[in-house]
Amino acid sequence: MGDLFVYNTLVGDKVKFEPVSAGNVGIYVCGPTVYSEVHLGNCRTFVSFDVVVRYLRFLGYNVRYVRNITDAGHLENDSDFGEDKISKKAKLEQLEPMEIVQKYTLNFHSVMSQFNTLPPSIEPTATGHIVEQIEMVKSILENGHAYVENGSVYFDVAKYNSDGNNYGHLSRRDIEEMSAGSRDLQGQQEKRNPVDFALWKNASEEHIMKWPSPWGIGFPGWHLECSAMGAKYLGDHFDIHGGGMDLKFPHHECEIAQCVSAHKKNPVNYWMHTNMLTLNGKRMSKSTGNTLLPEDIFSGENAILNKAFSPMVVRFFMLQAHYRSILDFSSEALSASEKGFNKLMQANLLLQKAIYSKATLDKQLETKVVDLINGCYKHMNDDFNTPLTIATLFELVAIINTLNSTNSFGTLSEKVFNSLQNTMNGFIIDVLGLDSVQINNKNDKSEKLIELMLSLRAEAKNNKDYALSDKIRDDLTKIGVVIKDGKDGTTFTLT
Amino acid sequence: MGDLFVYNTLVGDKVKFEPVSAGNVGIYVCGPTVYSEVHLGNCRTFVSFDVVVRYLRFLGYNVRYVRNITDAGHLENDSDFGEDKISKKAKLEQLEPMEIVQKYTLNFHSVMSQFNTLPPSIEPTATGHIVEQIEMVKSILENGHAYVENGSVYFDVAKYNSDGNNYGHLSRRDIEEMSAGSRDLQGQQEKRNPVDFALWKNASEEHIMKWPSPWGIGFPGWHLECSAMGAKYLGDHFDIHGGGMDLKFPHHECEIAQCVSAHKKNPVNYWMHTNMLTLNGKRMSKSTGNTLLPEDIFSGENAILNKAFSPMVVRFFMLQAHYRSILDFSSEALSASEKGFNKLMQANLLLQKAIYSKATLDKQLETKVVDLINGCYKHMNDDFNTPLTIATLFELVAIINTLNSTNSFGTLSEKVFNSLQNTMNGFIIDVLGLDSVQINNKNDKSEKLIELMLSLRAEAKNNKDYALSDKIRDDLTKIGVVIKDGKDGTTFTLT
Repeated sequence: MGDLFVYNTLVGDKVKFEPVSAGNVGIYVCGPTVYSEVHLGNCRTFVSFDVVVRYLRFLGYNVRYVRNITDAGHLENDSDFGEDKISKKAKLEQLEPMEIVQKYTLNFHSVMSQFNTLPPSIEPTATGHIVEQIEMVKSILENGHAYVENGSVYFDVAKYNSDGNNYGHLSRRDIEEMSAGSRDLQGQQEKRNPVDFALWKNASEEHIMKWPSPWGIGFPGWHLECSAMGAKYLGDHFDIHGGGMDLKFPHHECEIAQCVSAHKKNPVNYWMHTNMLTLNGKRMSKSTGNTLLPEDIFSGENAILNKAFSPMVVRFFMLQAHYRSILDFSSEALSASEKGFNKLMQANLLLQKAIYSKATLDKQLETKVVDLINGCYKHMNDDFNTPLTIATLFELVAIINTLNSTNSFGTLSEKVFNSLQNTMNGFIIDVLGLDSVQINNKNDKSEKLIELMLSLRAEAKNNKDYALSDKIRDDLTKIGVVIKDGKDGTTFTLT
Repeated sequence: MGDLFVYNTLVGDKVKFEPVSAGNVGIYVCGPTVYSEVHLGNCRTFVSFDVVVRYLRFLGYNVRYVRNITDAGHLENDSDFGEDKISKKAKLEQLEPMEIVQKYTLNFHSVMSQFNTLPPSIEPTATGHIVEQIEMVKSILENGHAYVENGSVYFDVAKYNSDGNNYGHLSRRDIEEMSAGSRDLQGQQEKRNPVDFALWKNASEEHIMKWPSPWGIGFPGWHLECSAMGAKYLGDHFDIHGGGMDLKFPHHECEIAQCVSAHKKNPVNYWMHTNMLTLNGKRMSKSTGNTLLPEDIFSGENAILNKAFSPMVVRFFMLQAHYRSILDFSSEALSASEKGFNKLMQANLLLQKAIYSKATLDKQLETKVVDLINGCYKHMNDDFNTPLTIATLFELVAIINTLNSTNSFGTLSEKVFNSLQNTMNGFIIDVLGLDSVQINNKNDKSEKLIELMLSLRAEAKNNKDYALSDKIRDDLTKIGVVIKDGKDGTTFTLT
């Protein structure tokens, strides 16, 4: 299947993927700060890494996938000063901070489940790892890369770099320039250098979420949790660390510095970053109203798109762009994806239901099919290139539809036919995580009900009652059940 | 509506419920230890407290409902010595302990959601509150009710009682007898008295889940987490603490002692305990094979019951017994509940769809309806007596069915008719948490599909095509959609 290449932000290039421990992959993805409904941009990041994890497992790796929940320590504007995002929302909604955390964690899980993303292997929380974070601050202090000021602990970037390290490497920034360019922000006077960042913050009387520490009552700096939890669950040197590109600096830059100081090791081999998302060509922004929540798209209740789109269509749409490209949401693009999605799922259903019967071999066609099958791996191996993989699947769809309409799957050898079936199912369902009927609830009777309607329709056709059979088809289409008649019976997809 | 009375284990009697803070209720329920699929007995406990929370909210209380996840510190046989339940399972399944936690937390949430229980307001974890637990041990040590031995900290029950406290009060046990009766168990020699219990345990080298503390590397005693988290999220003196009756001793007895020592306050006003569950008259037991998982009941794949039962039927069945009575699962009892459930939901659907048109008032009937409506509150106010509430609802069902078949809802005044509608919906849906069509997934098209089938059936009937209309009804029944024709159209319930 060839080697897997991954674009490594640290290197600035695609590099061959070689796991720390053969056969195993440890991957850490920065999860959401649960103070509001999950953003569509975040969803893109998590769907992208879902495909990364799925593909690694498809290749046979044993993957431990850690994605955290930030439930404390993330201050407004991602800064080291100001109010905790969750505490602020708790005051607004008149709830205890952990009620806010629960409310938006449930929202996050519900949206992730609708997008058919696999739950991570471990989903640790910042408040759940205060002890580990305090221990890490102690190590950094012992190693001389931090200082205590008024009950807060700050990372000493200049001292760290003077010890031969390279803060700024990941984000290609120069600390001299950063220091000179920094404004004199409120509270910054506690820092020796504006580029220094908080490891532990002294809590004021009003601050709600706080814990005792060797430096007084306070709370961990935002960057600390991921370093502590990554090391706890994946070791102090693991394979992949990912997140949105907005996290590259300062979050991930700080993470590296903390880990290198505490563990004297480069923590992560491959840093992966997903690109952002725009809406009708413009940045998403609450203030201009150019914003969409996932639920708004699924329900169609929004002023931006002209109709509702199902989570599977949105997922497919996201994967039609590469994770390192900007993705633009629009009605036109989503509608095109919806058509493509239905076409893809229909063809796969036909293929999976097809019965093979040997015919004269079409050698040329067979070679083409084998090339396309290999192409799926080739594209995914090229830094998880889902758009090219999907394009390749569509080339296979064209062949499948022709073979189906001429009832000639037998012009492929049985071995290649089986491989085609496995490849289509494997890439569509296992790797891309697309599912035509999304039935998370065991009590969902949709599938059985649709089968009943299809059998009523078949009977009506048999009785030449075409008015009834057409009515059934139209009624189903109206509620989003698209049916298609083929040689081997009728298939359906849900939109 | 009268006063609410709650059976308080601490008092051994039903007592009037008066919240600590008017209009607000704080309730803590001991959640599952997530080392295996959630037990049916636990489900009964959580469904029972779900109804308690729902009824309190129905009465207008602002309820903060805390239910924890035990993800560390719970040793085998609930003892102070032996292996951590989660670590042991992690070794068996060759996973990291937190992967076990994630796996079975997801299972737990899925089952709870199928049972239509509301998520708690806060769902804290033991590992997420190590700092708070260590602080609590410090307080207890400072107050002289604990001692350190080989890096472990034990609660000193005799010293605590000699200070005028009453360890043993909740479970009506005498510590002299307990001390005399205790066997000399492995490791017990560290304790000054066999009734003493661990607050913090020294961790051996092999122990996986451990944290630094003032007494060395270790982990919290199992009883500690609930005391620490209850106090953190509900205050050091709150309203209701609940759990299964097997938790009364030692778990809740120890909780009280810890809190009284640390906070010098009785922590909880009302202690509530749910009774156990049997299977065909016998104790559930893995070793004898007399055991059932919730999923086994829903799928029907088990050797004990003769068919599948939906989560809503099982929930209804559970509520047909009082939470303090033993509940026996059997095919016969569940089948009877299934019939009753369908009857109840059908009648309510008819009632909610009925159009009121005034007729001659039947004063006697109206008085009876008003009495029955008041009866629902009266029974729920009597220590959440769900079986008597359900029996009262069935008396209303009989009246509703008669009024419906004679098209004479107008013999009630409009005010009482509206009150009847609100009471039925309020108690069935809001309080008992029963839902005829359980559609958790927004993409579930079942309801729309059933409506399509029903309109096809209505059309077939219009065309006098009774073969088709009967076929549709029979097909629906086969897949668990039970339909019923009434004056005002056709209603359905899912089983």
